[in-house]
Amino acid sequence: MQKKMEVGVLGATGMVGQQFAHQLRDHPWFDLTWLGASERSAGKPYAEATNWVQDSEMPEGLGERIVSEAKPDGNAPKLVFSAMDASVAGEIEQAFARAGHIVVSNSKNHRMDPDVPLLIPEINAAHLGLIETQRKNRGWSGAIVTNPNCSTITMTMGLAPLKPFGLKKVLAATMQAMSGAGYPGLPSMDIVANVIPHIGGEEDKVETESQKILGTFSDGAIEHLPAAVSAHCNRVQVIDGHLVCLSIELEEKVGVERLIEAMEAWRGKPQELDLPTAPKQPVHVRPEENRPQTRRDVMAEAGMAVSVGRVRECPLLDYKFVVLGHNTIRGAAGAAVLNAELMKVEGYLD
Amino acid sequence: MQKKMEVGVLGATGMVGQQFAHQLRDHPWFDLTWLGASERSAGKPYAEATNWVQDSEMPEGLGERIVSEAKPDGNAPKLVFSAMDASVAGEIEQAFARAGHIVVSNSKNHRMDPDVPLLIPEINAAHLGLIETQRKNRGWSGAIVTNPNCSTITMTMGLAPLKPFGLKKVLAATMQAMSGAGYPGLPSMDIVANVIPHIGGEEDKVETESQKILGTFSDGAIEHLPAAVSAHCNRVQVIDGHLVCLSIELEEKVGVERLIEAMEAWRGKPQELDLPTAPKQPVHVRPEENRPQTRRDVMAEAGMAVSVGRVRECPLLDYKFVVLGHNTIRGAAGAAVLNAELMKVEGYLD
Amino acid sequence: MQKKMEVGVLGATGMVGQQFAHQLRDHPWFDLTWLGASERSAGKPYAEATNWVQDSEMPEGLGERIVSEAKPDGNAPKLVFSAMDASVAGEIEQAFARAGHIVVSNSKNHRMDPDVPLLIPEINAAHLGLIETQRKNRGWSGAIVTNPNCSTITMTMGLAPLKPFGLKKVLAATMQAMSGAGYPGLPSMDIVANVIPHIGGEEDKVETESQKILGTFSDGAIEHLPAAVSAHCNRVQVIDGHLVCLSIELEEKVGVERLIEAMEAWRGKPQELDLPTAPKQPVHVRPEENRPQTRRDVMAEAGMAVSVGRVRECPLLDYKFVVLGHNTIRGAAGAAVLNAELMKVEGYLD
Amino acid sequence: MQKKMEVGVLGATGMVGQQFAHQLRDHPWFDLTWLGASERSAGKPYAEATNWVQDSEMPEGLGERIVSEAKPDGNAPKLVFSAMDASVAGEIEQAFARAGHIVVSNSKNHRMDPDVPLLIPEINAAHLGLIETQRKNRGWSGAIVTNPNCSTITMTMGLAPLKPFGLKKVLAATMQAMSGAGYPGLPSMDIVANVIPHIGGEEDKVETESQKILGTFSDGAIEHLPAAVSAHCNRVQVIDGHLVCLSIELEEKVGVERLIEAMEAWRGKPQELDLPTAPKQPVHVRPEENRPQTRRDVMAEAGMAVSVGRVRECPLLDYKFVVLGHNTIRGAAGAAVLNAELMKVEGYLD
Repeated sequence: MQKKMEVGVLGATGMVGQQFAHQLRDHPWFDLTWLGASERSAGKPYAEATNWVQDSEMPEGLGERIVSEAKPDGNAPKLVFSAMDASVAGEIEQAFARAGHIVVSNSKNHRMDPDVPLLIPEINAAHLGLIETQRKNRGWSGAIVTNPNCSTITMTMGLAPLKPFGLKKVLAATMQAMSGAGYPGLPSMDIVANVIPHIGGEEDKVETESQKILGTFSDGAIEHLPAAVSAHCNRVQVIDGHLVCLSIELEEKVGVERLIEAMEAWRGKPQELDLPTAPKQPVHVRPEENRPQTRRDVMAEAGMAVSVGRVRECPLLDYKFVVLGHNTIRGAAGAAVLNAELMKVEGYLD
Repeated sequence: MQKKMEVGVLGATGMVGQQFAHQLRDHPWFDLTWLGASERSAGKPYAEATNWVQDSEMPEGLGERIVSEAKPDGNAPKLVFSAMDASVAGEIEQAFARAGHIVVSNSKNHRMDPDVPLLIPEINAAHLGLIETQRKNRGWSGAIVTNPNCSTITMTMGLAPLKPFGLKKVLAATMQAMSGAGYPGLPSMDIVANVIPHIGGEEDKVETESQKILGTFSDGAIEHLPAAVSAHCNRVQVIDGHLVCLSIELEEKVGVERLIEAMEAWRGKPQELDLPTAPKQPVHVRPEENRPQTRRDVMAEAGMAVSVGRVRECPLLDYKFVVLGHNTIRGAAGAAVLNAELMKVEGYLD
Repeated sequence: MQKKMEVGVLGATGMVGQQFAHQLRDHPWFDLTWLGASERSAGKPYAEATNWVQDSEMPEGLGERIVSEAKPDGNAPKLVFSAMDASVAGEIEQAFARAGHIVVSNSKNHRMDPDVPLLIPEINAAHLGLIETQRKNRGWSGAIVTNPNCSTITMTMGLAPLKPFGLKKVLAATMQAMSGAGYPGLPSMDIVANVIPHIGGEEDKVETESQKILGTFSDGAIEHLPAAVSAHCNRVQVIDGHLVCLSIELEEKVGVERLIEAMEAWRGKPQELDLPTAPKQPVHVRPEENRPQTRRDVMAEAGMAVSVGRVRECPLLDYKFVVLGHNTIRGAAGAAVLNAELMKVEGYLD
Repeated sequence: MQKKMEVGVLGATGMVGQQFAHQLRDHPWFDLTWLGASERSAGKPYAEATNWVQDSEMPEGLGERIVSEAKPDGNAPKLVFSAMDASVAGEIEQAFARAGHIVVSNSKNHRMDPDVPLLIPEINAAHLGLIETQRKNRGWSGAIVTNPNCSTITMTMGLAPLKPFGLKKVLAATMQAMSGAGYPGLPSMDIVANVIPHIGGEEDKVETESQKILGTFSDGAIEHLPAAVSAHCNRVQVIDGHLVCLSIELEEKVGVERLIEAMEAWRGKPQELDLPTAPKQPVHVRPEENRPQTRRDVMAEAGMAVSVGRVRECPLLDYKFVVLGHNTIRGAAGAAVLNAELMKVEGYLD
């Protein structure tokens, strides 16, 4: 057995940092040995520096590990995942990339930078070509690669198999889980037995990130998909799982059957390469009239597959359906880990 | 003080029947004296015949009242509200109307009959003109008048003020309360910490009922509004209140400000006539970016007003916003009581 | 009609302060005209200074009222309710009392002071006699009067009618509402679909406050009831309402029937005096085997009565039963308002 | 590798039957090949006969398996687990045992029969000696062995390590999960944002079953533990996990430290024999002041360990603490599977 590659997490003590720790537990290629956090946490054992709020136990051995300051001082591993809050991620990620690190980030700061890949490996593995542009532009030896916002990933995984039919219009209404708001996040009095029809900044992310993700890499740049996307984002009282209602218009009216076939048959690089956390089938299509349901279906393929259901005609646009994804796994830490797996196979981590 | 008019409820022992009992408590014009139910319940005191599951106490004196069989045997009052299950409502309502009763129904059976008003008094009071057609067609001395489905009422109240600008397209995604499923209704294991993206028959109701409600009465018939309506209906874990995300296309692109003005200024017959359960302002427009919220805003004007929020441009159609209404008050028992109030003033109950 | 008495609220911008504002809406004797808060809020209109998170609308006219600094500078009314956080309540309440104000407080700071009444008017109206002791001890012209902790009030209301039978032992297990934790209070990820078997400091409050409340005033002091009380306090996912399971030992084994009779017949000063917010019957005893239930019964008598159920033999102690009370009404703001009503009638506010 | 033993499930289509199917998925010793249900389901593929409502997928291959009628007609395997509803379990289980089957039952019918083991293998493995008595009494070649009620198992696992100190009195207040009520079970309108302080028959089970479980097998019979047990049983809005608050009196006042040591050190037959589904440490003691919490700790050791917390002095009895267990795993299907594993090793399945 080959020795595992050491990796780090920037922002390790926050909620997303904990999700990275959870997601990297027993990873066959990566070994989480470096935990970066703010100056206040540095020097403390992780168990003391973090308020572990996951529903699973802290991975063995991690609690005793001493937290480092999130600075590129030569002690961090080459590959660092970023789970930092947006208020600090922008500059620190750049500092690490400048110092030669590969930063695989879940933070929003650089997602829409024209020379930063916004990667979903099943959809746009070719966008990794932007790294060359990025290094040229910025004079870095390292790089920043991002994954999209949680609800955007879920929605776009459901749309990507239909791209060959010409995606023209997308109207999305999301019902998003509490865990997407982090910790302490939403006060309980705000969300119990309630719906909040607003998530700050989220609609804009869904509308713009999706166009970049579904865009085409050519000549060292991304040409965004010129589809019109409109989103209504809502917070509901579920623990994990974002469910999205979609109405779409296509250039080719291929019929419900072919949409379903296209979704079920859809595979990408992670499946070809059999990456460790890749789902076997990225999009599951449920035949029941009342599925997918958030609590029941969110863990499809360990939370790395999305589930589609109710594919049918739309009286207004062409078709409508729902898609469900796990917001902290496929939509955050698991997405970044899959990105890093692809990058390892493609030689970006050497 | 004038003597109150005696009224009855068909299907009094079910969940909706209980809501009628609650809604008619202390009504200034109507006195609930007759409780109709199945043969099995007839002859028992109401307290014994029903499993009272409301969060408020049973109205005083009602528990001792003896339940009658739901038959037009001459003992029921002229005005009967119908809260019957759809499996039996169709024929029994007809029998009562044939026998000269005015049946103000919340059941779905006759809503789409061409000669039955589907009434929201603020929107289409003129549709009561259909009663003449109905009586002519059917040879009845009584009549059946219906109110729409709960999510349809909520949505249509939000759309009606915009009709002058030419409603062309409506895309709706609903997040509907558990109480809409009645009792025992949804098993708790199905809905706690879950979203169910399907409600049997609901999308069709929203798509078709709204066109009739917003239609025009002329020459003794309703011309449906030729707008395209598409609905995604979802059940979420809230107790009361249906929230609807709407994207719309209008003939006139009048701008967000004028939409808000039109909604806030909108009044109808119930307000002109100052009917007892009419809201002062049928559509409240919330200025906050994260309102209306289901639990916090559902009781606006005792549950008889709807609340709109987040009116903004839509990148796909013209405008988008959310609208919230109380499904068992404005969307069911309260709607029917308001219908009856209008009918009383207009002389249909004499 | 007599002119209403002007009153103030210390800590008006917090969650409990909002509850006072809600509870004083349309009060027949008191008019809320003075809103005290921290220096940071002073000078701003209330609507701007507070983040209103109640499920009801802000009382009319309150939003425009300018917030004052919580200092006894001569501008506050004689009667001030205290909704201040415990971190600041201690000293500020004393300053107001020293300056001649009557401070009717919901804060915990002075509850267990030997010369401060811990008042539940139905139980221990005579404890107001402590005010004389307090003034003598402290040289104040004003006074501080407190109400107990929310779960303690609920439990003690259920126990007080049994005091004549000789309360010896009490074992309590509580299931307490989220609203008891204030705002932002509990993170939603901590309480949704969860039970937290710990509430900081609560068990001690229940065990000690109850002995003082049920104690006897004589010779200017309170002799605590020498009953052994043990509490298990739990937070559960309900919005409002604390439910308490009780097992008790009595000196007289009077039987279940007499316990129920004693509870139902129990009345106190508020009922004798017909105080405006007094419940007609302070303890309701439910006959059903599965009541009281938190959501369904919490609003008994506008939230001012407690509900008891399942009175039965206990295989270990003598009897067991459950009692439910509304934690923010009977257990907080409503309790304090009732205290002030009693004090007004008894001449303490002149 | 040895060939697995074929096993069956009586009542396979119900909620508990599904939990057995889930629990036996990939079992190293047992292979679920026979699914028994009512005449109505017999002959249908399992996928059609059951409404699968688990949050995990149906085990592969099970959906196509044809359901048999629950009759001892010679086709069922020797070992059958019983998940039948109490209304039918009594007689059918007897018929199977008479026909030579070993019935390992989760149903309540025979739990308190004097010659039927009520087994928790860590606590009372010796009670299997009752099988000889049972066969003698009833003339059976097979046998019935039961596991206790879900809340009883949880509580008794927490108490058993303290038996050496002389358990005299136990006062329990439970907060039980919705899944304990089966499917469709509790209507959502009954439990969302609510507590129901009553579970039919549950308190009696907790009070009597625990005395039998903790009793001593001698001379072919069980001498019940003469401890006084009193229970308050409550339903709360959690999905899985029963949490129990306990106050206890012991003969020896050994102090909190020794209680904790005894719990942590406690092991039984399943641990000695290293049975496949046995937890390594049956009772986890949490050091945090606010643990165990239902949602966060219910899956300790795959749901087979219980978690204790807050061990402290009780002002009324001697000590108090909380204990949490997974009601459908350790408290039902997992309990029965562990029972069968012990019986296999001890030769009862040969």
